[in-house]
Amino acid sequence: MAWYKAVTQYKEELIEIRRYLHMHPELSFHETETAEYIANYLTALDIPVTRNVGGNGLYGVIEGKLPGPTVLLRADFDALPIQDLKDVPYKSKVPGAMHACGHDGHTAMLLIAAKIIKAHQSELKGTVIFCHQHAEEVLPGGAKSMIEAGVLDGVDYVFGTHTSSNLQSNAVSFITGPSYGFADAFTIDIHGLGGHGAAPHTTHDAIIAASYLITQLQTVVSRSIDPIKTGVLTIGEFNSGNAFNVIAETAHLSGTLRTYDKSIKAVMIERINEIIEGIEKSFNVKITLNYTDGYPALINSEKETLWLKNLSEDISEIDEVLEGTPSLGGEDFAYFLQERPGCYFNTGVRNETIQADFPHHHPKFDMDENGLLNGVRVFVNLVEHMNTLVKE
Amino acid sequence: MAWYKAVTQYKEELIEIRRYLHMHPELSFHETETAEYIANYLTALDIPVTRNVGGNGLYGVIEGKLPGPTVLLRADFDALPIQDLKDVPYKSKVPGAMHACGHDGHTAMLLIAAKIIKAHQSELKGTVIFCHQHAEEVLPGGAKSMIEAGVLDGVDYVFGTHTSSNLQSNAVSFITGPSYGFADAFTIDIHGLGGHGAAPHTTHDAIIAASYLITQLQTVVSRSIDPIKTGVLTIGEFNSGNAFNVIAETAHLSGTLRTYDKSIKAVMIERINEIIEGIEKSFNVKITLNYTDGYPALINSEKETLWLKNLSEDISEIDEVLEGTPSLGGEDFAYFLQERPGCYFNTGVRNETIQADFPHHHPKFDMDENGLLNGVRVFVNLVEHMNTLVKE
Amino acid sequence: MAWYKAVTQYKEELIEIRRYLHMHPELSFHETETAEYIANYLTALDIPVTRNVGGNGLYGVIEGKLPGPTVLLRADFDALPIQDLKDVPYKSKVPGAMHACGHDGHTAMLLIAAKIIKAHQSELKGTVIFCHQHAEEVLPGGAKSMIEAGVLDGVDYVFGTHTSSNLQSNAVSFITGPSYGFADAFTIDIHGLGGHGAAPHTTHDAIIAASYLITQLQTVVSRSIDPIKTGVLTIGEFNSGNAFNVIAETAHLSGTLRTYDKSIKAVMIERINEIIEGIEKSFNVKITLNYTDGYPALINSEKETLWLKNLSEDISEIDEVLEGTPSLGGEDFAYFLQERPGCYFNTGVRNETIQADFPHHHPKFDMDENGLLNGVRVFVNLVEHMNTLVKE
Amino acid sequence: MAWYKAVTQYKEELIEIRRYLHMHPELSFHETETAEYIANYLTALDIPVTRNVGGNGLYGVIEGKLPGPTVLLRADFDALPIQDLKDVPYKSKVPGAMHACGHDGHTAMLLIAAKIIKAHQSELKGTVIFCHQHAEEVLPGGAKSMIEAGVLDGVDYVFGTHTSSNLQSNAVSFITGPSYGFADAFTIDIHGLGGHGAAPHTTHDAIIAASYLITQLQTVVSRSIDPIKTGVLTIGEFNSGNAFNVIAETAHLSGTLRTYDKSIKAVMIERINEIIEGIEKSFNVKITLNYTDGYPALINSEKETLWLKNLSEDISEIDEVLEGTPSLGGEDFAYFLQERPGCYFNTGVRNETIQADFPHHHPKFDMDENGLLNGVRVFVNLVEHMNTLVKE
Repeated sequence: MAWYKAVTQYKEELIEIRRYLHMHPELSFHETETAEYIANYLTALDIPVTRNVGGNGLYGVIEGKLPGPTVLLRADFDALPIQDLKDVPYKSKVPGAMHACGHDGHTAMLLIAAKIIKAHQSELKGTVIFCHQHAEEVLPGGAKSMIEAGVLDGVDYVFGTHTSSNLQSNAVSFITGPSYGFADAFTIDIHGLGGHGAAPHTTHDAIIAASYLITQLQTVVSRSIDPIKTGVLTIGEFNSGNAFNVIAETAHLSGTLRTYDKSIKAVMIERINEIIEGIEKSFNVKITLNYTDGYPALINSEKETLWLKNLSEDISEIDEVLEGTPSLGGEDFAYFLQERPGCYFNTGVRNETIQADFPHHHPKFDMDENGLLNGVRVFVNLVEHMNTLVKE
Repeated sequence: MAWYKAVTQYKEELIEIRRYLHMHPELSFHETETAEYIANYLTALDIPVTRNVGGNGLYGVIEGKLPGPTVLLRADFDALPIQDLKDVPYKSKVPGAMHACGHDGHTAMLLIAAKIIKAHQSELKGTVIFCHQHAEEVLPGGAKSMIEAGVLDGVDYVFGTHTSSNLQSNAVSFITGPSYGFADAFTIDIHGLGGHGAAPHTTHDAIIAASYLITQLQTVVSRSIDPIKTGVLTIGEFNSGNAFNVIAETAHLSGTLRTYDKSIKAVMIERINEIIEGIEKSFNVKITLNYTDGYPALINSEKETLWLKNLSEDISEIDEVLEGTPSLGGEDFAYFLQERPGCYFNTGVRNETIQADFPHHHPKFDMDENGLLNGVRVFVNLVEHMNTLVKE
Repeated sequence: MAWYKAVTQYKEELIEIRRYLHMHPELSFHETETAEYIANYLTALDIPVTRNVGGNGLYGVIEGKLPGPTVLLRADFDALPIQDLKDVPYKSKVPGAMHACGHDGHTAMLLIAAKIIKAHQSELKGTVIFCHQHAEEVLPGGAKSMIEAGVLDGVDYVFGTHTSSNLQSNAVSFITGPSYGFADAFTIDIHGLGGHGAAPHTTHDAIIAASYLITQLQTVVSRSIDPIKTGVLTIGEFNSGNAFNVIAETAHLSGTLRTYDKSIKAVMIERINEIIEGIEKSFNVKITLNYTDGYPALINSEKETLWLKNLSEDISEIDEVLEGTPSLGGEDFAYFLQERPGCYFNTGVRNETIQADFPHHHPKFDMDENGLLNGVRVFVNLVEHMNTLVKE
Repeated sequence: MAWYKAVTQYKEELIEIRRYLHMHPELSFHETETAEYIANYLTALDIPVTRNVGGNGLYGVIEGKLPGPTVLLRADFDALPIQDLKDVPYKSKVPGAMHACGHDGHTAMLLIAAKIIKAHQSELKGTVIFCHQHAEEVLPGGAKSMIEAGVLDGVDYVFGTHTSSNLQSNAVSFITGPSYGFADAFTIDIHGLGGHGAAPHTTHDAIIAASYLITQLQTVVSRSIDPIKTGVLTIGEFNSGNAFNVIAETAHLSGTLRTYDKSIKAVMIERINEIIEGIEKSFNVKITLNYTDGYPALINSEKETLWLKNLSEDISEIDEVLEGTPSLGGEDFAYFLQERPGCYFNTGVRNETIQADFPHHHPKFDMDENGLLNGVRVFVNLVEHMNTLVKE
């Protein structure tokens, strides 16, 4: 019998773990209790654990008795600075902190997967690394430091899943290629010369300069990038001036740049700089761009994604295996996929009938926990068949 | 001997009054102590006083023994919400309040003028109203309510003066026609639809709409008003958004409109409304314009201005009688001049050698009090000769 | 032996046909001699021909002796109004007309394919329609009228190829899904009020309105379409005014809109209309949009494309079978693919060493005719195996 | 009896001269027959004439018998390249040429004035120069070259008049100070990189650059010049591109700049240059500004204007002596007034009842010739009293 058939019987425990974590959220880079909880769980299963990997990260290892590749499965476990507004028994007990992105579910899935796989250690063809990553929500993220600490040493493939409030809880979905984008942040500070509102000729008006800047920035996406590629340039903040009759000396803008392609990102940044330089000349102002790289684009490798998608179509408990839609959000599993082939798939947890239909990061975000079972099934099934992964 | 020759000997008292007021500033519409002070001074001169005219305003009357016109002389007496940063013995004693616009000087000049004119009551040809006005700095101002309360009843001509930090303290200046502008205020609130910074197509971006709005508003002055007329349209505030990666739902702008002509003001407001309507269509946003009329343009009547300028050229103590430069600031003496012919002239108080060279409304604003003597001289001289004013 | 092995031996004849056509180009909707030439060639092969199908179009039919699907192969045969600037013996003999897009090659490939397939009629499993289409270059194109005239009656699958100056002549390429875009045309006419260059306030300046319109139109692509979708909005012409000192009353713009998605096209047109309405309000002008639909997006069906790509990988004479890059040009084979599954692939004809590296529509465009052999091979091989096409 | 009383009796002759000239217009710099006509007229009056002064210009001199200043009276005599569309007996006989600006009237007025003044030579206090200037309509104009040729040698004052279609034919008007503006011309040529309309990212779109340039240029007037000063910046031509689906490589703009102040002109040109430099940076284009100085601002000297206005108010035949409205048109009498004090006044020729109400330069422009009599009266009266002009 296929290993994943056992998943159903662990439903209670999976829900218990998820809800425990949901009630005890910890913010990024402060997830010490959660790490302790995970370590204890794995240790209790007799799985050796390495702790404090690049921060609060940790991993367990199950070495199979039979030859095969080394596969890393990853779940992140940090929470968000959001006040839980749900009215449920498992509501967050920490004021101002909440698992509003589903990382509690990610962790619960991976722990149950470990339990099931551990039971099959004797038949296991290869080695599995259960990678529990801290701090996905806050730059620079935990992935990078865990990799630098060696978590990928000897690893052949990497896999993970994100819960999705857009996907029904009877479905999983896969995307070949770019799935999450570059998600960078920047500020633009304009320094002109203020003055009396009735005497514009004695000033270099920062609001004028900033407004024209924004209209010119529209051409970055509309004219300067290959139209079959994706780019977004958003100005989210514009703050300038504090009196109706005084011409503003400075203006502060902030924004985000999104794309899937390194080369498009480069073109966009170059164009932003050129336009800034142009506006400086046109309006006699000084402009400072402060650019912060977010996570890189997350790109699923084609072969491994199709392999896992095919495997998942065999799981009769999963009603639908779908083609996913790329997002322009950021996700630091991208760093793992920069180093190794693999796939980051989506596990549906949406269910309107139980109010599990709020978007991620919403104060009422919740999950249909039945969907989590599917994620565990995919993990377990992939581990059972990981010997069929073929290197180039 | 000309009456104004006596002014010099009142220098000490004039300075004393001005400094007392400077140490005891009161904010607009709250000038009760100042009004009391003025009333007491006039009463002590045996000048009958009418109090609480349209608020804290008051006036005294000197009726001449000989026939002649009725002339109103006006001084305003409110202070500004500015912290005095000067290091002088007569620094403001009230935290956060300061006579930073010179109204203390205006009041002192008019009181000394009253004292001198009172001494000539028997030779006086006509009647003089000493109008002490409250609340010039804050809309709707005190002028309007004093007029509504009847201060202009029976008055033939109106005169007043403003101290000027741009004019040396040995000079006075006169402008025929428009001298201060319409100085209106407005807010523009844009309501779009916010959303995720990576999904602009699901939003109606308020920052985009506001930026294009501002670039279009430039054409109000550049294309829509008669080029030989004056208009200014300034956006002083632009506040929108509070996260780099969230598209703003609303934007708040505020600004000011300045001109000398009612018809130009009307054209500008019409064009602002049209452009707002256009931006609403172009960007699927709702925009609310809140427009507040400031004071009207202050327009000196030609005949009376030339008459007073000529008279002033006779005063040998005043080194220079100059042609002034119109300002686009606002001044509610405009309401008096809408009702009666007259002139609002400038009395120079600038003197770099004693740090009396900061602009009005600056926390270090100060005056060369010698200049105030010239203002009194002009007042006294005009009253001595007011019978030569000729009605149309 | 595979049927396509015979292609090599027809190289001389293929070149001869292509060069004859190259020397005798005919403009779209005027291709009577070319149609005659094609008909004669097919008739001489004993292939029955139906002429004047929806215009100058025609088709021949080869019915196999064995059961199988009906497959239509299409080649277009009109030329462009371009003066041939090449210096070769087979240069166009018609002043101002030239096969600058490779339709001469398309026709030659399909004729040679017919000749080879005719020789295998007894083994042929199914029926082949050799569809020679007129007027691809000029709206409304010939495809639509040929379909209306019934050329697709009884047809199961449609295939065709375009020569490509971007692809080396030893390669063919395939794209699954959108390959050519919607390619629509529009004009925008702005009607304001002209006047003297020194009196802008008496006018509604058409150049001002048009310039602001263009800056707003940038937001159609930058803010209003889903960033993972493709859209282009180009203004190619701006003509307004004819004196430096006269304000223009009208402005004429023309442009093109490109996308792969019907829904994106709809959003873009809606946004253009909204922005036009906004500019009308903002600048007191009347604007007329004249929109002309071009060809729809050409979308290759996934199954048939992969089937043909796989088949083509078996042809050892073809060095490279590549993934193609979508174009945003227009192509009326799109109408065939709206009605039937199939694929429109690219046949490489680039060869820098013989100056066959100018872009299509260039007056020096030329082809490496060796590449044409590959196109014939793909056609012949697909026909040999067309019985393996499986309907949904 | 005042000299000007004689003017009425010359009405027939004045009309005859004006109509003869109207029927025989000559374009700027080609006015040889007109110069001959004028010379003959003056010579017949026994007035010595100097011809070919700086071109086709000429002047006559009447030296008085009594002492007094030397006054120059100027009339221009060139016509415009406009087809006369009036239906009158005195319609232009020259196809494509027309006295559409009233210079025929200017000439007729000055000739009749000469005739009358000549009759008073014995009483004349001072000397009069009758300056007939060629080529006012076309840069660089005739004024400059006549001055360089010495026409102002020994001259103390200069006067002239322009007919006005905005002023009723029973009125004349005077302006103190700036009356005509700087009226400069410029072209702006943008050089980008063209390309396919579907591939904006491979181009530097000249239409985009030019459109954003125009929106930025609005800030020259709206933000960069003193609001109480006058400036106009008009783009009259925008020509770019010639296909809807090709991105334009170049754009050609032309325009005009108007102001009364040299310093404002300098600021405006500086700002245009800065904005051009900014757009070059922002959009990767090269931009060339070609700037042509037109005539300078025409500034009437205050004293002489008031002197002449007062004198004119004495002429009972003139119903109204008005304050004129400054124009932003150009007029090369400005060069005379740069060198000598004097005044250029307006002579009303408007009369709706006889269709004399089309604007200058209109193909149906005509004058109420009764108005011309007033211009002659002002000239004659000023000459009679020129000894009352007082030098500073």
